[in-house]
Amino acid sequence: MEKYQNPELSALERAIDLTDRMTVEEQCGQLIYDAPAVERLGIPAYNWWNEGLHGLARAGVATMFPQAIALAAMFDADGLHAVADVISTETRAKYNEIPKHGDRDIYKGLTLWSPNINNFRDPSWGRGQETYGEDPYLTAELGKAFVRGLQGDGKVMKTAACAKHFAVHSGPEAIRHSFDAVASKKDMEETYLPAFRALVEDAKVEAVMGAYNRVNGEGACSSNFLMDKLKEWGFDGHFVSDFNALEDFDINHKLTKNQVETAAVAIKKGLDLNAGRVYEHLMEALEQGLVTKEDIRTACIHVMRTRIRLGMFDAETEYDKIPYDVVACKEHKELSLKCAERSMVLLKNNGILPLDLSKYKTIGVIGPNANSREALEGNYCGTADRYVTFLEGIQDAFDGRVLYSQGCHLYQDRTSGLARENDRLAEAEVVAEQSDLVILCVGLDAYIEGEEGDAGNEFSSGDKLDLFLPAPQRLLVSKILAKGKPTIIVTAAGSAINVEADCDALVHAWYAGQFGGKALMNLLTGKTDFSGKLPVTFYESAEKLPDFCDYSMENRTYRNIKDNVLYPFGFGLSYAETVCSNLKVDGMNVTLDITNNSDRATEDVIQLYMKDDAPCAVKNYSLCGFKRVALAAGETKQIAMTLPQYAFESVDENGVRAIRGKQYTLFAGTHQPDAISEQLIGTKCLTTQIIL
Amino acid sequence: MEKYQNPELSALERAIDLTDRMTVEEQCGQLIYDAPAVERLGIPAYNWWNEGLHGLARAGVATMFPQAIALAAMFDADGLHAVADVISTETRAKYNEIPKHGDRDIYKGLTLWSPNINNFRDPSWGRGQETYGEDPYLTAELGKAFVRGLQGDGKVMKTAACAKHFAVHSGPEAIRHSFDAVASKKDMEETYLPAFRALVEDAKVEAVMGAYNRVNGEGACSSNFLMDKLKEWGFDGHFVSDFNALEDFDINHKLTKNQVETAAVAIKKGLDLNAGRVYEHLMEALEQGLVTKEDIRTACIHVMRTRIRLGMFDAETEYDKIPYDVVACKEHKELSLKCAERSMVLLKNNGILPLDLSKYKTIGVIGPNANSREALEGNYCGTADRYVTFLEGIQDAFDGRVLYSQGCHLYQDRTSGLARENDRLAEAEVVAEQSDLVILCVGLDAYIEGEEGDAGNEFSSGDKLDLFLPAPQRLLVSKILAKGKPTIIVTAAGSAINVEADCDALVHAWYAGQFGGKALMNLLTGKTDFSGKLPVTFYESAEKLPDFCDYSMENRTYRNIKDNVLYPFGFGLSYAETVCSNLKVDGMNVTLDITNNSDRATEDVIQLYMKDDAPCAVKNYSLCGFKRVALAAGETKQIAMTLPQYAFESVDENGVRAIRGKQYTLFAGTHQPDAISEQLIGTKCLTTQIIL
Repeated sequence: MEKYQNPELSALERAIDLTDRMTVEEQCGQLIYDAPAVERLGIPAYNWWNEGLHGLARAGVATMFPQAIALAAMFDADGLHAVADVISTETRAKYNEIPKHGDRDIYKGLTLWSPNINNFRDPSWGRGQETYGEDPYLTAELGKAFVRGLQGDGKVMKTAACAKHFAVHSGPEAIRHSFDAVASKKDMEETYLPAFRALVEDAKVEAVMGAYNRVNGEGACSSNFLMDKLKEWGFDGHFVSDFNALEDFDINHKLTKNQVETAAVAIKKGLDLNAGRVYEHLMEALEQGLVTKEDIRTACIHVMRTRIRLGMFDAETEYDKIPYDVVACKEHKELSLKCAERSMVLLKNNGILPLDLSKYKTIGVIGPNANSREALEGNYCGTADRYVTFLEGIQDAFDGRVLYSQGCHLYQDRTSGLARENDRLAEAEVVAEQSDLVILCVGLDAYIEGEEGDAGNEFSSGDKLDLFLPAPQRLLVSKILAKGKPTIIVTAAGSAINVEADCDALVHAWYAGQFGGKALMNLLTGKTDFSGKLPVTFYESAEKLPDFCDYSMENRTYRNIKDNVLYPFGFGLSYAETVCSNLKVDGMNVTLDITNNSDRATEDVIQLYMKDDAPCAVKNYSLCGFKRVALAAGETKQIAMTLPQYAFESVDENGVRAIRGKQYTLFAGTHQPDAISEQLIGTKCLTTQIIL
Repeated sequence: MEKYQNPELSALERAIDLTDRMTVEEQCGQLIYDAPAVERLGIPAYNWWNEGLHGLARAGVATMFPQAIALAAMFDADGLHAVADVISTETRAKYNEIPKHGDRDIYKGLTLWSPNINNFRDPSWGRGQETYGEDPYLTAELGKAFVRGLQGDGKVMKTAACAKHFAVHSGPEAIRHSFDAVASKKDMEETYLPAFRALVEDAKVEAVMGAYNRVNGEGACSSNFLMDKLKEWGFDGHFVSDFNALEDFDINHKLTKNQVETAAVAIKKGLDLNAGRVYEHLMEALEQGLVTKEDIRTACIHVMRTRIRLGMFDAETEYDKIPYDVVACKEHKELSLKCAERSMVLLKNNGILPLDLSKYKTIGVIGPNANSREALEGNYCGTADRYVTFLEGIQDAFDGRVLYSQGCHLYQDRTSGLARENDRLAEAEVVAEQSDLVILCVGLDAYIEGEEGDAGNEFSSGDKLDLFLPAPQRLLVSKILAKGKPTIIVTAAGSAINVEADCDALVHAWYAGQFGGKALMNLLTGKTDFSGKLPVTFYESAEKLPDFCDYSMENRTYRNIKDNVLYPFGFGLSYAETVCSNLKVDGMNVTLDITNNSDRATEDVIQLYMKDDAPCAVKNYSLCGFKRVALAAGETKQIAMTLPQYAFESVDENGVRAIRGKQYTLFAGTHQPDAISEQLIGTKCLTTQIIL
C-alpha cells in the first residue's frame, strides 16, 4: 500500500505524499476545477463542481426540497441537518454508480458548493433565496447544521460542504463582476462574517468559496483581510474561487494586468482551487518567477487533502454501499413534503382558514404560478421525479369543481405575441365570478428572480426592481379582488413581496419544492398547522431602504430598522394558540414553558432575542436562540435552551467583538418583541433583565 | 328591427342589408381579420382568428384532446364529430363570457381556423401532425365529421370551421413563403383536392383558407384554378388568407409589384378576408381604379354573412345559455382520455403486454418525453387544467418503485451547457440496471416538430431531417437496450418514426393530449385494449422517398409505394383476436361479420380497400370505407357499410375523375391487404371481385 492510500495516516500526511509524487505540471492540473486524471498515480479525473443547496442539484433526478430561504423559515437546525443528510446520501448514492459508467463530469462529484450563507441584507437580491435570511445567528446555526449534515460524522467525510460566497456578497447581480462592496469593520464583524466563522470554527466546513466582487477594494479571492480571517479561524480545508471569478481580475476589477498575474496573486494569497481557467497560466507564472513551486505544492496538498478526506484514495468507505434506490425514495420525499409544510408562512387569516371544503362548490384557481412547476423549484435545483403544483394539490384535495385560469404571464403583459395586452385577464375574471372561493397563486420564479447569467432572468439580471408583484400580476390581483369573492393569495417567491391586497388570507409559500401543492392544501385545510416564520423582514417598500449598493447595515434588517415593516422577521401565524410562560434564566441556561391552548396539534418556534445596553450594540435586539417545538392539543412542554456567548457580545467601530453591556433584556416568545408581531399574534414576549 | 337583424330572412339578404349600410371605408375595415367596430351600426369589433384543432387552442384553459393525427388514428368519424362538438361547446361557453369583459381580441371568437385537411404526403413535414394523414378518403370523412361537429345543426351556426390550407400545402416549412408547389392535374384531383371538395360540398364548411405557397405558379390566395374549384363545388362561405400570406406576394413570390396590387389581385380573385394587413391598401387600390366598390361590397357581404350565420346579429341564439362550467368539465376530459386510448398505436408486442404489474418490483422510466407536458400537447393547443405525463401515469398505476431519468435532452447533446455531452446517459443506464422493466419514452415535441416561425422549432423550421430519433435519443435507446432488460418503447411524435430498436413492445403515442400518461397505462396494463391504427405509412427511411419538394404522389403513401414500409397505413395491434367473415356485397351495400375470439373486450376498425383495374388507377388500392366497432369478449357483430361512388372512380392524366374500371377487387378486414400487415396481425383480408 502506498503511503497516500493508508487510512491510518492523517489526511495531511497522505496529501503531502500524493502531491510530492506529482510533477509541478501535474500539481497545477489538480488546481483547476475539472482536474484531469494522473493515470500513473491512479488519480482519476475529478470535476469539483457539484451543487446541493436544497437537494442534489443539476445532477438529474433527486429529492427536491424547498429552496434554502424556505428551509430557513422552518427555524429548525435539526431539520436542516436532516435535509443535508438526505442530500449527502443521495449524492453518495449517485457517486457510487455514475462514475462506474465513465461519467466523472460536472455535478457528479462529492464536493457540493453549498450552502450559501451570505446575509440577505437587501430584499432586492435575486440570490437571496439561496440564503438563510437576514440574521447572522440564524444563518450560522442553520448553516452549521447543514454543513454537518452534508459532511457527516463518519470515518471519512460523506460529502464536502462549501461556505459561500466569502464574503459580503449580496448583489446587485448585474454588476457583481466589477463591484466593490464597501463594508465597515463593524458591519463585517457584526453581520457579514459570523456565519463564515461559525462554519469554519464549529462545523469544520471543508471548503470556502471566494466571491466575485471586491471587498473594500480587494478581490474577494485574494483578499488579505479575508485570508487573515480564515487563518484566524483555523480554516483547514481548501479555498475555491467562484466560477470565473478570477477571470474578472484583469478585465473587470482592474486588479491585475493579465491572467498570469491573476494566477500568481491568487495562489500566493491562498486560493487553492480555481473554478475557471486562470490557473492554466500557473506554469507561466512559475517560469516568470511570480510564484514558487512551494506555492503550487501547498495548494495541491490542500485540494488532495479534501479528496483524501472524502475517501477517494481508500480501498473502500462506509458509504460505498449506499444503494441507488435511496435517490428520491419515499422517505426522502416525505421529508421534502414535511419541510414544505413547515416553511410556508401564514401572513394573514381573517378566519377563512382552515378551509371547510364542504362549504364550497367551486374553487377558482388563478394565477401564473398556479400550475407552474418552476414556481416550486427556485434556482440551483435538481429534477424531481414528481411535482405537485398548487393547482394539482387543490384538485387532489377538493372533490368539487375546480376552475383554473393562468390569469396573466408571470411578468410579460400578454401570453401571446399576437394578442393585445392582458389576454388572460377576462378568463380569470370569469373564473372568479363563477367560483365561491378563489385561490390566487402569484409571485415569481427563477426566470425572473435569481442569478446573473441564468437564461431567463429578465429583470435586472435576476434582482427585483421593487417589492411588488410584476405589473401584470398587480393588475390581476386588483381585478380579482374587485370581484368580492373570498380570496386566498398564495405567493411563491424567494424574498419579500408586498402584494398590496386586502385578501382574506395570505400565504407566503417560497419555492416550496416538489410537493408544494400538496403541502399547501394540507395547510389550508388544517390537516397540518402552519408553523413557518419569516427569516427576513417583509418591508413595505424598497424605496424606504438604503440604496442596494450601500453595504452599510444601518436601517437594514430587524436589528437596525425603525419602521417600513409590513411583516416582521420571525413572524408567522398558525391555527393554534400557543402561550409561553415561566421564563427562567440561570447563567446561560434558559427554561420556559410553552402551552398549546388549542384542540389541534401544532408546531411553533421559540425565539429568544437579546437587547444589549452597550452603546455600540445593534439598535434594536438580536436573535440569540430558537427552537422548533411540536405540541399536541392542549400540551405544555418545558423547553430548555442555552444562551450563546454571542448573546452578550457587541461589536464596536473597529470591528472588535466583546462583552460590553451592563444590563441585558432577554425576550422570549414565539415571535419578535415588536409591536406588529404582538398585535398580529396576540401575545407578548416574556421578558427578563440580566445584569452582568 | 332592422332588416339585417331579422332571423326570418336569409343570411345573404341580411348580409347585403348590413353591408349596404356601411361606407366603402367601413366595408374595407371588415375585410381585415381584426375588424374594428362600426359603432353607428351596432357592429362590435371582431377578431376572426381563433383555433380549435384538437381542443379550443390558445384561448386559455380548454379540454386538450390528442393532436389531429392521433384523432385520425381512431379511424372514427363519430369520434371526430364528438370531439368537434366539445370544442365548439367550449368555444361558445367562452364566447358567452369573455367579450362581456371587454375582450374581443384574437382567439376569443367563433371562427375557428380548423381543421387542417392537407394531405400528409411526406413524413418530414412538421405540420403533418395537424392533419388526418395520407389518405384523401380518410381525411375527407374525418374532416367532414369534424366540420359538422364544429358547425352544429342548430338554427344558427355553432362555430364556423375553416378548411385549410387550400391547397397542396405540405412543406417544406422553411421555404413556404416563396415555394411553388407543382402538382399534376391527376395528383390534384386524386390526392390534394378531394378532402376540400368534400368539406365544401358535403359538410358546407363556412371558410376556406388560402395557403402560403404558390400552386403551379399561382398564388394560392389568388389562384384561378383553385377559385374555379370553389365555384364548381358551390362554396357558400368566405375565403380567408393564411396569416400574412398576402405579404408574401410582392416580396417573396414576386407575383405583384407592391401591396396595393396584391390587395387588388386578391380581392378580385375572391379572397374575402385578409389575415394580415395588406387589405389596408384596398382604398388606395380603389382610388387607383384597380378594384371596384362592387369587389369590396361582395367580399364584405361574404364575411358579414358568416357573422350573421353565427347569430352575431340575432337578439339571442340557442347557444347563449351554454355555461362557462362546461369548459374542461369532467365529461369533456373523459372524452379526451378515451380518444387517447383509441389513438395510441401498438406497433410491436412480443407478449410482454398487457403488463402483469405484480411481476415487477422496479420500473425504470427513462427518456426526455417521460415527464414532459409538451410531449402531450402537439402544436395549436390550449392550456389543460391537468396533465398526466407518461411518468405520472406510470407512478399512479404502479404500487412498486419507479425510478426515473430524463436520459438526454430532447435533441441537444447535453442538458447543461457546462457539462460534457451525454450528461444524463450514465444516470439512465443506472436506472435501467436497477429496474426489472424499462419504459423508454422518446420522440419529439412541438419545439422541434411543427411550424415555421414557432419559437422552438430548431431543426429545419419544424420539419424533420430524417425519420429517426434525434441523435442523443438514438444513443440513449441503443445504450438502454444493451442492458438487456425487458423494454417498452413509447414514442411521442406527430409523424412516422423509425426507432431502429429491438424492444419488447413499441407504442406510438402521438401527442396524446392532457391525459396521455393515464391512457398509456390503461393500455399497457390491458385495462383498455389498443385499437389505434396508423393514418400514415411508417417508412423505413426518408432517403428512399422522393424529394420533399417533389409534389408528385409517385412512390408516396400506401396507394402508390412498392416498398420502404416499416409499419403499414391502417396497421395497429391489439390484445384481442378479431376475425372477419361473411363478406357480402350487394350493389353499394357491404356486410360482413366481425368476431372477437378473445376473452377481453376490444375495439377494432373495419377497413375496406378497393383495387381498380383501370390503367390510370392508383398503383395499389384505396381506402373506401372504415368503421370502428366495439366488441365484448367473444362477441360477433354484423357490420353494414355503404361503398361511396369514390370507390369505383379513377383519375386520368387530365385530372378527370370517372368510373373506368371493369373489374374491382374489394378487400375487407381490420388492416390493409398488404403482406406486412397480414403477417404481423395474422389474418388475411376478405376479398371479393366486383365486375361492373
